Amino acid sequence: MSKKLLESINNPSDLRKLETVQLPELAKELRDFIIDVVSVKEGHLGASLGVVELTIALHYVFNTPNDLLVWDVGHQAYGHKILTRRKERFHTNRQLGGISGFPKRGESIYDTFGVGHSSTSISAALGMAIASKLKGEKRNHIAVIGDASIASGMAFEGLNHAGVTDANLLVILNDNAIGIDPSVGALKNYLTSVKEGKNPKQNNMIKSLNFDYSGPIDGHDFDALISELERLKKVKGPKFLHIITTKGKGLQQAEKDQVKYHAPGKFDAITGEIIPKSEENLPMKFQDVFGLTLVELAKKNKNIVGITPAMPSGSSMKFMMDAFPDRAFDVGIAEQHAVTLAAGMATQGMIVFCNIYSTFLQRAYDQVIHDVALQNLPVIFCLDRAGIVGEDGATHHGVFDLAYLRCIPNMIIYAPKDELDLQNILYTASLGLNHPIAIRYPRGRGKIPNFKISKSKFQKIEIGKAHLLKKGTKVAVLSNGFIGTNASQAIENLSNKNDFAHYDFSFVKPLDEMLLHEIFGNFHHIITIEDGVVKGGFGSAICEFAIANNYTNSIKNLGISDAFIEHGTIEELQKICKIDVKSLELLFSKY
Amino acid sequence: MSKKLLESINNPSDLRKLETVQLPELAKELRDFIIDVVSVKEGHLGASLGVVELTIALHYVFNTPNDLLVWDVGHQAYGHKILTRRKERFHTNRQLGGISGFPKRGESIYDTFGVGHSSTSISAALGMAIASKLKGEKRNHIAVIGDASIASGMAFEGLNHAGVTDANLLVILNDNAIGIDPSVGALKNYLTSVKEGKNPKQNNMIKSLNFDYSGPIDGHDFDALISELERLKKVKGPKFLHIITTKGKGLQQAEKDQVKYHAPGKFDAITGEIIPKSEENLPMKFQDVFGLTLVELAKKNKNIVGITPAMPSGSSMKFMMDAFPDRAFDVGIAEQHAVTLAAGMATQGMIVFCNIYSTFLQRAYDQVIHDVALQNLPVIFCLDRAGIVGEDGATHHGVFDLAYLRCIPNMIIYAPKDELDLQNILYTASLGLNHPIAIRYPRGRGKIPNFKISKSKFQKIEIGKAHLLKKGTKVAVLSNGFIGTNASQAIENLSNKNDFAHYDFSFVKPLDEMLLHEIFGNFHHIITIEDGVVKGGFGSAICEFAIANNYTNSIKNLGISDAFIEHGTIEELQKICKIDVKSLELLFSKY
Repeated sequence: MSKKLLESINNPSDLRKLETVQLPELAKELRDFIIDVVSVKEGHLGASLGVVELTIALHYVFNTPNDLLVWDVGHQAYGHKILTRRKERFHTNRQLGGISGFPKRGESIYDTFGVGHSSTSISAALGMAIASKLKGEKRNHIAVIGDASIASGMAFEGLNHAGVTDANLLVILNDNAIGIDPSVGALKNYLTSVKEGKNPKQNNMIKSLNFDYSGPIDGHDFDALISELERLKKVKGPKFLHIITTKGKGLQQAEKDQVKYHAPGKFDAITGEIIPKSEENLPMKFQDVFGLTLVELAKKNKNIVGITPAMPSGSSMKFMMDAFPDRAFDVGIAEQHAVTLAAGMATQGMIVFCNIYSTFLQRAYDQVIHDVALQNLPVIFCLDRAGIVGEDGATHHGVFDLAYLRCIPNMIIYAPKDELDLQNILYTASLGLNHPIAIRYPRGRGKIPNFKISKSKFQKIEIGKAHLLKKGTKVAVLSNGFIGTNASQAIENLSNKNDFAHYDFSFVKPLDEMLLHEIFGNFHHIITIEDGVVKGGFGSAICEFAIANNYTNSIKNLGISDAFIEHGTIEELQKICKIDVKSLELLFSKY
Repeated sequence: MSKKLLESINNPSDLRKLETVQLPELAKELRDFIIDVVSVKEGHLGASLGVVELTIALHYVFNTPNDLLVWDVGHQAYGHKILTRRKERFHTNRQLGGISGFPKRGESIYDTFGVGHSSTSISAALGMAIASKLKGEKRNHIAVIGDASIASGMAFEGLNHAGVTDANLLVILNDNAIGIDPSVGALKNYLTSVKEGKNPKQNNMIKSLNFDYSGPIDGHDFDALISELERLKKVKGPKFLHIITTKGKGLQQAEKDQVKYHAPGKFDAITGEIIPKSEENLPMKFQDVFGLTLVELAKKNKNIVGITPAMPSGSSMKFMMDAFPDRAFDVGIAEQHAVTLAAGMATQGMIVFCNIYSTFLQRAYDQVIHDVALQNLPVIFCLDRAGIVGEDGATHHGVFDLAYLRCIPNMIIYAPKDELDLQNILYTASLGLNHPIAIRYPRGRGKIPNFKISKSKFQKIEIGKAHLLKKGTKVAVLSNGFIGTNASQAIENLSNKNDFAHYDFSFVKPLDEMLLHEIFGNFHHIITIEDGVVKGGFGSAICEFAIANNYTNSIKNLGISDAFIEHGTIEELQKICKIDVKSLELLFSKY
């Protein structure tokens, strides 16, 4: 397919040389380019297809990079990357050493603010706008935010502040009624009513916050977009443009099944058909172990409820939502609310499974401390995507949770070593622990062939108990969670494998101190392994134990060192962190 | 003054026996009771005076404790406590072993949810309402929230979810246009316009979120309150009542100077006049060292800006706001926004002092990681009220920051040992560090007599450098921050004080490893002291260092153990944590 216009464009200056009438053709070429690459290289598809016209119009009307453009979340920024000097590198998207799947300051001057987590764009762009004003610099500042992201509390805080400033800030609401899953909440319903003409614009919510509101307009209509952006460029103070787009625009299947085509994997660029992966005989995904177990538990106990902040598909909470729609809650991108809602329910005796990706629980840290742990409410936190998550990269790795949770009194912290332990800890937690518990498990699949959730086999796990996995004579390897699999394999590969004992310390808190005393008494060499930062984490807990008990054993802590980890496959990143099988084997062989 | 009605009331059932016409008299007695006790025993005054009528009306109309009442923040709950079986104990308010200054579940069945941090009430009450519905229990659920708290993102998240439920939830907005300091933001302006009749209620913001909105009504008018609450009791689904009150109501001076009378200290119960404390010759408050230094630095560098989330008085950011109103920002109770706003400004070269109480930075943990540290933006976090804060108790102690910040790459973490070091680290940070820094300092006063901010004496601090404070021969005491003063005094009191060396490790990150090697080489016994949790904190960092370097010295970590600390004076609580002078002296004497 010919991409003549796109070929001539390396940066927005090139784009601005085009006539307005050429833009629809460029949009078609850009869409095809995205589809061609993503169909083969994988990545996020639907969001970027939805904003092709907006992306072109913004760089056409505004003088980027002097004008500052902030994309919220960043799933939708592929077109932006392609038009801003990264066309040739776009095929390296999300790969180790390649460009990031999200805007990233270090990557381009056009990426004004690194994103990944949602709802930061208004605050960041407002900060830039205030700075420009103080410095006497004339620039425009634009935040592009979706309707799912704007419903998060942080976005409201940004709007609430911006509305009382005279900052030159344009907030563009890209309203497509969907985030990763369909948007929820009262604001979404309100926006829908605005779109349907049921609410007079004259007195709308955004105007109440003192913004100059315009829209809704068709975000795929270049004439409408460009004339409105040109007009807004001349309006002083905080401005808000509401545009309506279709996620997946231009690829029929992606428009039809927007959830699946958010990040569809490989697909046929012409037909849009997803190329099925051979998933037979693969172990189950941890998220499905969670989702399916929860349904089984919920069948037996009507006090069990589930909460997800906007991740019903990703967390597999959708199984519970389908089976017990009254007892499973998608609260939108609202981690803070999710946690305190869980706390409120727990005060009334509900057994609450609050599923939040490890990296997103950072958004609700205070609520975990202040509303749950301080009151010692037995909320069951299920932290999906814990540890290194792979291609999503630095913004998304769930590597801090062990450290930031371990310092909180009353918390139980558990990382299952496999699917069976995840099933059983969920079962155990459902029986009532009298404490909050955080259960963290990784992205992706487990290791047990043909694993099935079987309620007849649910077994209670003893809180705080660690286990010997393999006997040995010289060195004790203490692993936390699924990363222990790497340790097991590494030991198996050793010629002197009999020297190595391996213990599963799934509980980071409480620690199995009795077993630790035994281990410290029997082994001079101790090695700890975790899929998380070492500073403050599991290894640190073992150091504290050793020192509090005056042990002088040699201890080596393995895990993520004190640096942010970029994107790549999980295997590649584990290798960089030296917690892959080969690195462990090499290290162990030196003992 | 006669308090005949109040004398007859021990719990809300007693209250409900009164005739409606008797309530104004009871309000007067309750107000007098609060004034009488708080004038002598100190505490939060204005907020509770403002909701006397509301408190009585709520317990009169609703069937507490079966109906569930959640107070946001809780500064305003003194009347509630007095009417719910705590009249006799009210004089113990905020004292060690006495009742808490905030609602607290462990204290009373009428305290349905522990509070302290703002904006949690809607989420918590919604959780309760959903639980009641699932359990088939008929109860009412009421959240009382102020206009400063409702502007926080978390409250918006709660409203956004509640609006799409059929939960039996009543949100009461107690609109007095002030939090601790006057409320700010676009929502506040909107609410003001509603109060002034400039916005038709028919189409207001709250209705847009699908709430049954009523008001605004006079929150001091029993007839209006009771009839409206009776009506709302019968309305199904989410309801919102907007009431207007005056903070400090009934005490003239408290109405007039609402900021000062938020927590006025001792005052004359009749005249309202504040009893001046003899503050002559007392050392300066750390918050004032911050505020005054910032102004001096800002005079010299026009790129310096300040941000506070709703704490201009408490943080002394007000000095900067007065001196440079265009360069100091009170963003309201919006810690998340505050941090990302700071990040946005920092991308444009501004030197941003973002002042957030240690305990409230928990609200912006993700923003610190994702928006600041990951991008390595040199935001200067000034964490006031770090460590044990005293009478505010468990919700407010800033004891987790060292642990939750230490695991974040790129962060510098510093705790000044005294006022001079605070001044100088602020100066040093203002020169540019190429990294974010967290400067944590305690509530209250320093120790240097007649300390004055003197820009001629600003000295640059070497990042990561620790210092010998006192030579010794046997034991090395390593202290972090102002708590080192206790260690110094304890050592001074020892008969064998020459045995004790004392080092100031103000930097928790980066650690002064060169000096640590020297110390670990020279001393067998190492003692660490910090005003924070030991797990993951400074002591943990020293343990990690020792183990990574194969040292077998004896190490003792002092600080807060793994439990929440209640309320009391700072001295009393330090004693409980065994980090007061006497406890340290006793411990040291055993070496």
